[in-house]
Amino acid sequence: MAVGNVKFPVMHAVPGIQLGTTNAGIKQTERDDILWVEMHGQATCAAVFTQNAFCAAPVVVARENLQKNPKYLLINSGNANAGTGEQGMQDALASCIAVADLAQQKPEQVLPFSTGVIGERLPIDKLIAALPTAQKNKQEGNWHKAAHAIMTTDTFAKGYSKKVEIAGHSITITGISKGAGMIQPNMATMLGYIATDVVISQENLQKCLSEAVDQSFNRITVDGDTSTNDACVLMASGQSQLPELQENTKKMRAFQQAINEASMHLAEAIIRDGEGATKLIKIQVKQAINASEAVQVAKTIAHSPLVKTAFFASDPNWGRILAAVGRAGVHQLDVNKISIYLGDVCIVERGACAASYTEEAGQRIMNQEEIDVIVHLGRGDVSQQVLTCDFSYDYVRINAEYRT
Amino acid sequence: MAVGNVKFPVMHAVPGIQLGTTNAGIKQTERDDILWVEMHGQATCAAVFTQNAFCAAPVVVARENLQKNPKYLLINSGNANAGTGEQGMQDALASCIAVADLAQQKPEQVLPFSTGVIGERLPIDKLIAALPTAQKNKQEGNWHKAAHAIMTTDTFAKGYSKKVEIAGHSITITGISKGAGMIQPNMATMLGYIATDVVISQENLQKCLSEAVDQSFNRITVDGDTSTNDACVLMASGQSQLPELQENTKKMRAFQQAINEASMHLAEAIIRDGEGATKLIKIQVKQAINASEAVQVAKTIAHSPLVKTAFFASDPNWGRILAAVGRAGVHQLDVNKISIYLGDVCIVERGACAASYTEEAGQRIMNQEEIDVIVHLGRGDVSQQVLTCDFSYDYVRINAEYRT
Repeated sequence: MAVGNVKFPVMHAVPGIQLGTTNAGIKQTERDDILWVEMHGQATCAAVFTQNAFCAAPVVVARENLQKNPKYLLINSGNANAGTGEQGMQDALASCIAVADLAQQKPEQVLPFSTGVIGERLPIDKLIAALPTAQKNKQEGNWHKAAHAIMTTDTFAKGYSKKVEIAGHSITITGISKGAGMIQPNMATMLGYIATDVVISQENLQKCLSEAVDQSFNRITVDGDTSTNDACVLMASGQSQLPELQENTKKMRAFQQAINEASMHLAEAIIRDGEGATKLIKIQVKQAINASEAVQVAKTIAHSPLVKTAFFASDPNWGRILAAVGRAGVHQLDVNKISIYLGDVCIVERGACAASYTEEAGQRIMNQEEIDVIVHLGRGDVSQQVLTCDFSYDYVRINAEYRT
Repeated sequence: MAVGNVKFPVMHAVPGIQLGTTNAGIKQTERDDILWVEMHGQATCAAVFTQNAFCAAPVVVARENLQKNPKYLLINSGNANAGTGEQGMQDALASCIAVADLAQQKPEQVLPFSTGVIGERLPIDKLIAALPTAQKNKQEGNWHKAAHAIMTTDTFAKGYSKKVEIAGHSITITGISKGAGMIQPNMATMLGYIATDVVISQENLQKCLSEAVDQSFNRITVDGDTSTNDACVLMASGQSQLPELQENTKKMRAFQQAINEASMHLAEAIIRDGEGATKLIKIQVKQAINASEAVQVAKTIAHSPLVKTAFFASDPNWGRILAAVGRAGVHQLDVNKISIYLGDVCIVERGACAASYTEEAGQRIMNQEEIDVIVHLGRGDVSQQVLTCDFSYDYVRINAEYRT
């Protein structure tokens, strides 16, 4: 049910970043479910994590270890190790110790990540038993396998890869992500791993990632549910010949732009694979007083089950969009200043159905696989965009059958 | 797909309140779609309205006329007269004038209400043409017909009726409501009409209704969508022999209690008829610091599509409930103090799966048609309850096919 072009791209290896996958039989026995990532000794690593108060055990450990110069990531799919209490913490720590033993490094240099069912104990023995194979399989060229190993209910592997020239040096940016439910702004939403070969301090890398995530992964939503586990990691192996990137430079801005683009692509891929999605919806709210109210209106539309089912039905039921704007809680909203567009078709002007609107024109847009909803609030000059998908029978089916 | 016992009760007539219905062919031609309500000259009338900024034209008119001693209600189903701009206002006003002409009263004494499709013009000529028949049909015994005339996607008519003894006098409380989608706390959620025969000032009646609605209609949610139209009205015909109810008296408290009970029953009926609902879910959040955070947590659980689809599947996927609590945005939530129960089964204690929990025990509760979810936050002593329903294939079907 993926929306649009979701072909897996050619993935350029990133010098100094090796990936190894294998099947540990955590939930399924058919495909790889663990991913070992090993960074060059000179690498720096940044990460952002879920804001859910019930964050999973591996998130607690990874957040802690992020400050300790991590060189290894261990990701498993099939089990989230969330809601597992003290046992879950012990299991997450045990997985770090097992990686460290094999790599002859310290456990604090390992960031663990888990995704899958909440509330069941991580089968730590199976995971540890599979680690030597994952380590042995490590290669710089394993991005395609890596993208598959982190999938849960995803229907396609999500990748991005680009060579970018900065100041005469070619650098590489390659990344993977996974969704596909429990996707909601404010991180906590998915797993994303982006690698590059630039030389950059951990501090500057962290700033770069935060900016990129704020404009991408934090602006997508499938169902408004923020998960307990999810995280986005940006690794810089330091193997490029480009001199170290410094703050507030033209080079840094070029790098930031490239990371933003990678993040946006990987975030959009998650929405294209939203559980049961048949349509990609871009909601742009313009003429807001500030970003906060623009996002608030966009999210209210994006989370409305009535709006999402209308998109599924290709029904230009603009009244539901209008009702969502009206209940978004914007202070002193003057509905008479609002206009709403579906693509290039004006559906609402001055708070009511546009005089020029015809059902045929609305239907033409609704029949498209990718739809822009543009809301003009008539209050200011700030714009924000949120991506979402429609709500289908398959969303219910996937989530009603997930554990069975 | 209604949940539980939804038999329409025997409806006691309320002296001084007459109801007349007929078919105006607004959307359907098969059943009555307009309701004329006429109150005794001594009646008082209170109402609460949607908080959606895009409130419909009849809401604007009714809110204005509420202060002008209204004696008539005119309700139509099939068309919401919302998102209809200036034309919609003219149509709403024209309907009041038409009622006033027939009744030989002032248009300001009419409160108009509409429910149905948003954004299409109200067929005002059809509506006006049907008014004489609705007026002619008025009787005190027409509550059953009235309950049917206000239905939209409802699958059963919703009624409540009780005779209550206060200070030796028997008073009557009879009411009807309709849902069933776009149901979300903060009013704006449904139509409800409750009538009684007590003598009470408009001011005291309004206070009574506000308290009742806050504990009932504002604590239910089907899909989180707050509609543009909905309203709840409490009429007191003044025909009882009970002396006028005064504030802060034992009699007033008894009356308040009876109105609370009626409101709760009519609100719960809306959830039992939630679009596609197969289960009634009562979410109780206890040990909160204040009502606001308790409602916040309860609503976050109630609105989670992942939680709702798990209920539909009878899947004791308590991890999704836990994740919803974690993302509810409670400041400094200590997850280690949280316990969660499904009915009498403890599923989470100290923030993790309860040691005593078994899948069988969870499954036993999930198989029930009515399920209690109880969350102990371990922060204070305030409790709040929100009612919701599950999320099924039929929810998607109903809302994807609504206009076609």
